[in-house]
Amino acid sequence: MHPFTKRHADSVSALGEERLIAALRRWLGAASPRAPFGIGDDCAVLAPARGPQLITVDPVIYGRHFDDRVPARAVGAKLLKRNLSDLAAMGGRPTAAVLALTLDARVSVAWLEGFYRGLAACARRYGVPVVGGDIAQADGIVAASLTLVGAATGTRVLTRSGARQGDWIAVTGRLGGSLRTGHHFKFTPRLDEGAWLARRPEVRAMMDVSDGLAKDLHALTPPGLVAALDAAALPCRAGCDVRAALVDGEDYELVLAVSAQADLPALARAWRRAFPRTALTVIGRFARALPPGAIDLRAYHGYEHLR
Amino acid sequence: MHPFTKRHADSVSALGEERLIAALRRWLGAASPRAPFGIGDDCAVLAPARGPQLITVDPVIYGRHFDDRVPARAVGAKLLKRNLSDLAAMGGRPTAAVLALTLDARVSVAWLEGFYRGLAACARRYGVPVVGGDIAQADGIVAASLTLVGAATGTRVLTRSGARQGDWIAVTGRLGGSLRTGHHFKFTPRLDEGAWLARRPEVRAMMDVSDGLAKDLHALTPPGLVAALDAAALPCRAGCDVRAALVDGEDYELVLAVSAQADLPALARAWRRAFPRTALTVIGRFARALPPGAIDLRAYHGYEHLR
Repeated sequence: MHPFTKRHADSVSALGEERLIAALRRWLGAASPRAPFGIGDDCAVLAPARGPQLITVDPVIYGRHFDDRVPARAVGAKLLKRNLSDLAAMGGRPTAAVLALTLDARVSVAWLEGFYRGLAACARRYGVPVVGGDIAQADGIVAASLTLVGAATGTRVLTRSGARQGDWIAVTGRLGGSLRTGHHFKFTPRLDEGAWLARRPEVRAMMDVSDGLAKDLHALTPPGLVAALDAAALPCRAGCDVRAALVDGEDYELVLAVSAQADLPALARAWRRAFPRTALTVIGRFARALPPGAIDLRAYHGYEHLR
Repeated sequence: MHPFTKRHADSVSALGEERLIAALRRWLGAASPRAPFGIGDDCAVLAPARGPQLITVDPVIYGRHFDDRVPARAVGAKLLKRNLSDLAAMGGRPTAAVLALTLDARVSVAWLEGFYRGLAACARRYGVPVVGGDIAQADGIVAASLTLVGAATGTRVLTRSGARQGDWIAVTGRLGGSLRTGHHFKFTPRLDEGAWLARRPEVRAMMDVSDGLAKDLHALTPPGLVAALDAAALPCRAGCDVRAALVDGEDYELVLAVSAQADLPALARAWRRAFPRTALTVIGRFARALPPGAIDLRAYHGYEHLR
């Protein structure tokens, strides 16, 4: 859906600030608690937090993270799901979200309603209150940035650091073709899977795959080691080759390091019991040097921001 | 300072993502802790919080909240200070910030360095770790949105609700002329004042003045009442008339409701001891109807978003 309207009467500018705020409260509905625990005061009040908290921020920008082919509702949902994927990558669960919107005055009220209703439906589904927000105007842009606060689901927060030489590299789901197939907005964030993996002591490090495995895996690779991937093992999405699986990005899957001492068959059996419809695939190991036949990731580049 | 450069070699695009991220870590310096407590993982980890927490989000956008006359360093500082002012309005103190930046690829590295260094200096001054961030590209825009997490400084969080009929209306500092005088980026957020006022039981409600008193005061006014202001009492900035004080906006002062039963002279004495260089001025009362001579706020309009 195209975010802009040519008819002034259909634009957010014609609606005006006061009616717009009333409308977005209606669109958010139960997803947005009342002030001071939600939108409507200088700050929103959050409950005390006993354990470590998590915080992350990610945007969606027209022309970059979505285009006219993506329904407005899916844009709102994607914004929240991108951030949920970051929480999933550390084994977290969400507690609250705040939204900063930057809009051209010619954005249509219909598009904005779809965006908010999609965000609200997704927020209800994952139990995330949208507690705060800001709307600002800027010419020629439709962008939204969401900050998500969360908490660890278990006793530990799983970071990107912790992999060691010999550790197995595993990935959830399938990779590649995200833009072509619409996976980039249809995906389900791996919250349950992330929480489950964070409780497994043999899992040492984890992150989500957003810019493409070839690029993202660098952050999981300990200094002095390389990620030696087996091309034949890569769980490519239907119609995708190895390159697509490595560089397309927006997979929103989890990639993790599993201890070299782990009982891999036992982990695989437990995983299948917990998530029978989602693959967990061992795709390689962290090694001192690339063995013959392993993929040389230096030949691939994932998504580059600011290019 | 103009954010854009015509020389590609001076642009963030020429720097590239990897070197840009290394540079911004350097620019943030001590203001940004290491992951997992800062930038560099899927989420940042925040410490547990015993009491209620506060959260707010506000942006700065080129052409709206700053222009070429504002130094880049001041833009970074303003972004944080706008959010600190929201915390101040509830009697809070900051605990962590996350930053979402949206940049045209032609933004100059020099401008961005100034922005980050100004933000970092302000963050160090107020003890706010910048724990997370995201940089995205979008044509023709320079915008940053900051989410600030905080905590109450005392036993209560002061909201916008709570004023009653007969309560006094008071305001800190001076109002009006913020754009003309540069106050809109030179101001000091009223954190100490806000914390002090939140500890005074006779203060019933509070908010900060950002869109102009004429507009903002609606949110502090209980249903069925009016804010009856005395024009002669308004603390206008030098060179400003009543209209400027009411509608200019970006004052970042605190406006509050003080119980009708309060000992106003005692409050004024205690205030002067605590803040000898800042005015606290009683400017009116909440009443059933406008008394003769009071300002009719309906004749004034503060800053309208999305006009």
